Amino acid sequence: MTGSVGERGEFALIASLTASLKSGDDVQQGIGDDCAVVRFGDKELLLTCDASLEDIHFKRDWGTPEEIGWKAAVSALSDIAAMGGRAVAVLVTLALPGDLPVAYAEGLYRGLSSAVESTGAAIVGGDTTASRSGIVIDLTVIGEVVGRAVLRSGARPGDVVAVTGAVGERGAGLHALLHDIEAPDLVRAYLHPTPRIDEGGWLQAQPSVHAMMDISDGLLPDARHIAKASGVGFNLLSAQLPNNVRLWSYWAEQGMESMPQRLCSGEEYELLVILAVEEAPALLQAFMAQFDVAIHPVGVCTEHSGDVLVDGEPPAAQGFEHFRAP
Amino acid sequence: MTGSVGERGEFALIASLTASLKSGDDVQQGIGDDCAVVRFGDKELLLTCDASLEDIHFKRDWGTPEEIGWKAAVSALSDIAAMGGRAVAVLVTLALPGDLPVAYAEGLYRGLSSAVESTGAAIVGGDTTASRSGIVIDLTVIGEVVGRAVLRSGARPGDVVAVTGAVGERGAGLHALLHDIEAPDLVRAYLHPTPRIDEGGWLQAQPSVHAMMDISDGLLPDARHIAKASGVGFNLLSAQLPNNVRLWSYWAEQGMESMPQRLCSGEEYELLVILAVEEAPALLQAFMAQFDVAIHPVGVCTEHSGDVLVDGEPPAAQGFEHFRAP
Repeated sequence: MTGSVGERGEFALIASLTASLKSGDDVQQGIGDDCAVVRFGDKELLLTCDASLEDIHFKRDWGTPEEIGWKAAVSALSDIAAMGGRAVAVLVTLALPGDLPVAYAEGLYRGLSSAVESTGAAIVGGDTTASRSGIVIDLTVIGEVVGRAVLRSGARPGDVVAVTGAVGERGAGLHALLHDIEAPDLVRAYLHPTPRIDEGGWLQAQPSVHAMMDISDGLLPDARHIAKASGVGFNLLSAQLPNNVRLWSYWAEQGMESMPQRLCSGEEYELLVILAVEEAPALLQAFMAQFDVAIHPVGVCTEHSGDVLVDGEPPAAQGFEHFRAP
Repeated sequence: MTGSVGERGEFALIASLTASLKSGDDVQQGIGDDCAVVRFGDKELLLTCDASLEDIHFKRDWGTPEEIGWKAAVSALSDIAAMGGRAVAVLVTLALPGDLPVAYAEGLYRGLSSAVESTGAAIVGGDTTASRSGIVIDLTVIGEVVGRAVLRSGARPGDVVAVTGAVGERGAGLHALLHDIEAPDLVRAYLHPTPRIDEGGWLQAQPSVHAMMDISDGLLPDARHIAKASGVGFNLLSAQLPNNVRLWSYWAEQGMESMPQRLCSGEEYELLVILAVEEAPALLQAFMAQFDVAIHPVGVCTEHSGDVLVDGEPPAAQGFEHFRAP
């Protein structure tokens, strides 16, 4: 294959790299979902990893080292939530520039371990090495399937699409950081995502939940992932998307349309949940009674394989993809 | 803690970062051995990760992308061998510069997957992202304890120290690469280490094997790790160290003493085995009959806690440590 990885784009590159991989007998779900699912004795493992690189995923002056560490850890832990599983153990790879203050490394590690310990998991190992330029954090989370692993592939036409939390705020927070705009609440939302482990576990136990993933690329691009895995389509209803005054006024002050931004707001680490329409009203109500977290129905599942529409139309907005210019 | 991570050094940094970590109920061995050991249902997990960074661990022109990938994978797989375990599943994190040719990324991945598949494990997931500068490869291996996990902490005074393979060649190969010296056989040995999974599994099944690890920092510094973990000392006998004509003549041609180089030759991925003296002769013979791999007795275990001597004297040579100048 010719060309550079930048020209190729993240998803096409992954497809070409992994095309000839052999699977194992115990591998129940390989590459292509939030976690791999691997049979191990009388239980099933959930396996996932997520890397955060300085000046790619974060800049050092965006927050405290604790905040940078917390967020990096949540990006990996969230994949366990997306399967409805339990986090068990974590490995941490840190590559650090030689001139980094030890106090910074300690703060980073405190943030990482706080996030890991908030889920009941333990850091059990890792690798610490020098980096020629910039901090690299790579977390692997080993989790356990509880009940069942909720995959991306279970959505059925007629299902309801729902999202937890104030989806859209993290993208605005990131925009504020990138453009040096004063918006402390949105920046705080961006730097302090919550791994929805308890919520994912509860949703897993509801048979009417057919598919689930966490929103890391953005609601719209991640809905495309589920659509592709399930062989269905979605129609997202823009009026149903979570909104609030600070989000609305932030984009208004920037003179920008809010809707495309909210559709492609990544690094949310909220759950995208596909559930049976009949049970949806009772389930969403029970969820909100159980957790101090909103859950919004934002669309419906259609038969149009792979298509994700917004208000019945193909959306102009695209999601974030690594290697490609935003 | 003040100062930079470079001043602090790898091992002191890891100690300070991980000092206040909480352990989990299922964690049987946390940070400090080749792998973590975690109970999971009716079995035990082995968990390890290892990062390889361009211009820290390798240079692109040292070998083909396949060779770079192979070696990066072996550095992680070897930790499973060191516990006497079986590799089950692997996660691969790749951070790649946008201008890297796709063909290079594909070669790298072929090397990684060949090494993984050579052990019977499967790549089941990972993360692929952009890098601002240089290739980052981080492998996590999920393995299974077979029989028992052979830890670093089981060495007893009177035991014999043995090493598999031609320990010393990889350090000479690395020296040749770093100084642009023509030594194709040694360079090949450096780029093509073997994960000693079968050998480790066989050694695990011998009750007279008391402790084991893989040689990544060098025979001398790694013997110190075992000495510390076991509360014993070692006396390494220089005349017993593996040697051969090409190794001897390489160092002679450089006008350098061979012994300190061979004592601190890292990235060997050979096994350092501590075993009961009574069973040693029969066991070493049986090992060589079973595998096409040498195993050399190179020293004895003493009561002098933490000390590693060479021919009864404290050695001048130090091992490789990240962050510190070599």
